[in-house]
Amino acid sequence: MLTVNADRLWNSLMEMAQIAATEKGGSGRLALSKDDQQGRMLFADWCKEQGMTMKTDAIGNLFARLEGQQPDALPVVVGSHLDTQPKGGRFDGVYGVLAGLEVVRCLVEQSITTLKPIEIAVWTNEEGARFTPAMLGSAVFIGELPLAQALLVKDTNGISVADELQRMVNAPTLPLQRPFDAYFEAHIEQGPVLENEKLTIGVVTGGQAICWLDVEVKGVAAHAGTTPMPLRKDSLFAVAEMAQALERLAADFAPDGLVTIGQLAIAKSSRNTIAGQIHFTVDLRNPDDAKIAKMEQIVYESLTAIAEQRGVEIAIHRHWLSPATPFDETCVELVHDVTKRLAYRYKKIISGAGHDAIHLAKHCPTAMIFIPCKEGLSHNEAESITKDDAAKGADVLLNVVLARAQ
Amino acid sequence: MLTVNADRLWNSLMEMAQIAATEKGGSGRLALSKDDQQGRMLFADWCKEQGMTMKTDAIGNLFARLEGQQPDALPVVVGSHLDTQPKGGRFDGVYGVLAGLEVVRCLVEQSITTLKPIEIAVWTNEEGARFTPAMLGSAVFIGELPLAQALLVKDTNGISVADELQRMVNAPTLPLQRPFDAYFEAHIEQGPVLENEKLTIGVVTGGQAICWLDVEVKGVAAHAGTTPMPLRKDSLFAVAEMAQALERLAADFAPDGLVTIGQLAIAKSSRNTIAGQIHFTVDLRNPDDAKIAKMEQIVYESLTAIAEQRGVEIAIHRHWLSPATPFDETCVELVHDVTKRLAYRYKKIISGAGHDAIHLAKHCPTAMIFIPCKEGLSHNEAESITKDDAAKGADVLLNVVLARAQ
Repeated sequence: MLTVNADRLWNSLMEMAQIAATEKGGSGRLALSKDDQQGRMLFADWCKEQGMTMKTDAIGNLFARLEGQQPDALPVVVGSHLDTQPKGGRFDGVYGVLAGLEVVRCLVEQSITTLKPIEIAVWTNEEGARFTPAMLGSAVFIGELPLAQALLVKDTNGISVADELQRMVNAPTLPLQRPFDAYFEAHIEQGPVLENEKLTIGVVTGGQAICWLDVEVKGVAAHAGTTPMPLRKDSLFAVAEMAQALERLAADFAPDGLVTIGQLAIAKSSRNTIAGQIHFTVDLRNPDDAKIAKMEQIVYESLTAIAEQRGVEIAIHRHWLSPATPFDETCVELVHDVTKRLAYRYKKIISGAGHDAIHLAKHCPTAMIFIPCKEGLSHNEAESITKDDAAKGADVLLNVVLARAQ
Repeated sequence: MLTVNADRLWNSLMEMAQIAATEKGGSGRLALSKDDQQGRMLFADWCKEQGMTMKTDAIGNLFARLEGQQPDALPVVVGSHLDTQPKGGRFDGVYGVLAGLEVVRCLVEQSITTLKPIEIAVWTNEEGARFTPAMLGSAVFIGELPLAQALLVKDTNGISVADELQRMVNAPTLPLQRPFDAYFEAHIEQGPVLENEKLTIGVVTGGQAICWLDVEVKGVAAHAGTTPMPLRKDSLFAVAEMAQALERLAADFAPDGLVTIGQLAIAKSSRNTIAGQIHFTVDLRNPDDAKIAKMEQIVYESLTAIAEQRGVEIAIHRHWLSPATPFDETCVELVHDVTKRLAYRYKKIISGAGHDAIHLAKHCPTAMIFIPCKEGLSHNEAESITKDDAAKGADVLLNVVLARAQ
């Protein structure tokens, strides 16, 4: 099995992090900003040193291509993104791009020319911190978001995606929805599972389904000093019982079911007024579409039962439902097999966060490789990984690409 | 037993309600405003018609005096307040003042001159809607709040109590902390108990103790999609369990113990972020000082135990403690006895809200008479009572005053 050059990969990560470095050790390269452009130019310079050609598509996705023995074969594509949160970390996205570069550097160094071409993709505006939605570039690429609509998106200063692309990018030369042989994205986990279980590699099996609910509970606001407990319709105590039911729901769907109440607000609240009306959100996650449907159904049933029993009104509204995205079995098994052969400690894992790979999975055979990040911290200047984990994740990527591109 | 003129009392209530009447049938006479002044002038005109003399003290408390056979005897004082919330009801406070007027009208009509003088007090700024604190006039009168400090209090427009008093009131002629024989205040219950039990009179035994706590719970904010349930320190689920414990605490101290979580806020909340830090308030009430101390102790113990078990941090801080105010036993028994002799359906009840009588109880023998209000609604334009209940409450006040003033 080939392995990458750990120091070279780490040095490139550190050099990229210097561009728009933040005070507390992170990076702040907002999508399509001059900082982002500078990051892309550094990456392009490195790619050109390896004999790669650089091209973009109409939404500014950047592709570095290493030709194969069969130039007409569909490319094996790796990559991620170089844009960051305003006070983001050094590894979210960047790791996947530079691990891809390290793969190419190894191949070139070893004079290996694969049958199929290899491309490194840098997707535009993955973070969504400047332009909404997140993962905009990959959404346009696969045809889920119309190009014309994406170009009109403006940041808070009124500058559009089209404005920035005109400034940054020469005439695009690559079509959208171009076919790929496969797509592999290496990424930090952005969760605590691998670190907690002392594992190095997450063999990602897909993206989980997400269901967002809004719940409105209406009791009766009344005087905290004059209203006996049995005459109250206290929405706060009702919601507390609902929250406990939701916590039990997660336990009933363990370990894959996740339940979060992220927002909760009491209308016109005061210290000595019984809570009348409360709005709260529910975030349900499960890698299995049938199971998330069941979870949602139980939320409706159990919360309604609690409301009825307490004599408060309830309205539950589904805000958003995103189905599960299972990755291609062959690609996942390839990652799995390579990891086992490298003898790296691993587990199969679901991608909890959104990634360009979740979009690409609708376009071509796709898989992801996770490496641990400290305390699961991401979107944060304190985001941290080890040089060793970074190298091992790239080792997996290298051998996966080699196998797929031959 | 004498009884009052129900129509006359009702008509006076309705006439007073015309001053600064609000769109939805309430009144809006903010303390020491021109509207409040107009209300006081109408009341003064009515009192003068009964041969009463009008005098004020240095904080603008207004006293209408009907001389007794023994002018040097300490006066039996009745009353309440004429100021209202910005969109207040027609009866909160006003009822106690005009029930007092109706008592005097009956005595004059029947040519009864009591041994002791009778006074009707109109306390300044009971509501606290314009000037903080509430019950400002009675607090200054009993010496709990220094006069100089109260005069400096400003409304949100920068107008002080002193400014308004200078405009409204002639030179004050009555000293503060002047001794009273007794003080009786008739008031709407501002709670649902009497209506719910189909009773007409609440024989008020005193004011309950109030303990206000601030609770800060610190878990760890994390990604709702990438953090497995067992690795979370979710402060929302912790607080839900705490709220359930607080609801059980109220049950354990039933029927007198009251527990309310009026405010709750998640710091930097978002739909897909696990709640990191939560602040919430606890309002504890009990008529017994020893019991509220026990309740507070249990809050500390049970919430801390939940926090420890869940691995979240907790800080509990006492914001305010107001001890219980038992009313004078002789005065309470007099109200009790008169109510029984009138054969009105009643129960002994605790005053859940603040009242001038709670202050006066520290100054002289004091008691209160409650009448029902619809659905316990108060501080609301929809505040509502029946003519019959209003008359019966005044009947009790009349016979109590007669008995005490002879």
